[in-house]
Amino acid sequence: MASSGESGGTVSFSEEQETLVLKSWAIMKKDSANLGLRFFLKIFEVAPSASQMFSFLRNSDVPLEKNPKLKTHAMSVFVMTCEAAAQLRKAGKVTVRDTTLKKLGATHFKYGVGDAHFEVTRFALLETIKEAIPADMWSLAMKSAWGEAYNQLVAAIRLEMKLAA
Amino acid sequence: MASSGESGGTVSFSEEQETLVLKSWAIMKKDSANLGLRFFLKIFEVAPSASQMFSFLRNSDVPLEKNPKLKTHAMSVFVMTCEAAAQLRKAGKVTVRDTTLKKLGATHFKYGVGDAHFEVTRFALLETIKEAIPADMWSLAMKSAWGEAYNQLVAAIRLEMKLAA
Repeated sequence: MASSGESGGTVSFSEEQETLVLKSWAIMKKDSANLGLRFFLKIFEVAPSASQMFSFLRNSDVPLEKNPKLKTHAMSVFVMTCEAAAQLRKAGKVTVRDTTLKKLGATHFKYGVGDAHFEVTRFALLETIKEAIPADMWSLAMKSAWGEAYNQLVAAIRLEMKLAA
Repeated sequence: MASSGESGGTVSFSEEQETLVLKSWAIMKKDSANLGLRFFLKIFEVAPSASQMFSFLRNSDVPLEKNPKLKTHAMSVFVMTCEAAAQLRKAGKVTVRDTTLKKLGATHFKYGVGDAHFEVTRFALLETIKEAIPADMWSLAMKSAWGEAYNQLVAAIRLEMKLAA
């Protein structure tokens, strides 16, 4: 249940897990804009109040699914999350693109992101992937591989949140 | 998005909403033990850390779905939630059985239940109902009727939480 790798120590991600992540990411990658948006809409379906954490959603009259800033932001978060997973084994650690873990830690700390938010986001990510790939590619092992990669990303962000506190 | 009736004032629940709730509750009622458990397992699927709020889950080695105390507790919460919805229009206010709103407020305050928890529970309740009733009985109006009844229950609990603070 708790995220492993919480210590920020050695990354444990098997070759089989990497294969599952790479196989599904190859299918999703080209549809990242659409899937990123679905990912965020799922987060807000489960936890509507989370949308209030985003300045561009707080002051907007546009429906969520038509908000251009949300679409851009959602895609970048989705791609960052999936690429961190795809590179986890080879890099031997969590790596993020377009930003730094330090910045992610500071932002998540500033907005008071807590356990429940990280968990809802995990659920939304796994649901998005499940619906994005062919039904016969989805399995408990696939779910667990993405869940583990996500946990390690969250552990890395949490470590930076502690340093930002 | 925010729960209406937050003020604890007049209850607004239409006859059509009541009909939808009564119709679906009549189908679910006899299967409350099973549905209550599914409801709680869905909560914990989305937010695993929420299970740590329950003493009988914290100190248990039994898998969640086999925990007899969880099953009993989940059924009683599910029945209370659904009956509060079923009686909302006639009673003109939120009524709970087997306990009092004051007690519910104090308990939820004590355990630090927040926005995200109430939202995850709402999502889990609606998913449970969606899967419990015939597919052609589920509709946006059905979802909205149960969502509104749930919001009013939460508003009543929150009001008591403030008084307990």
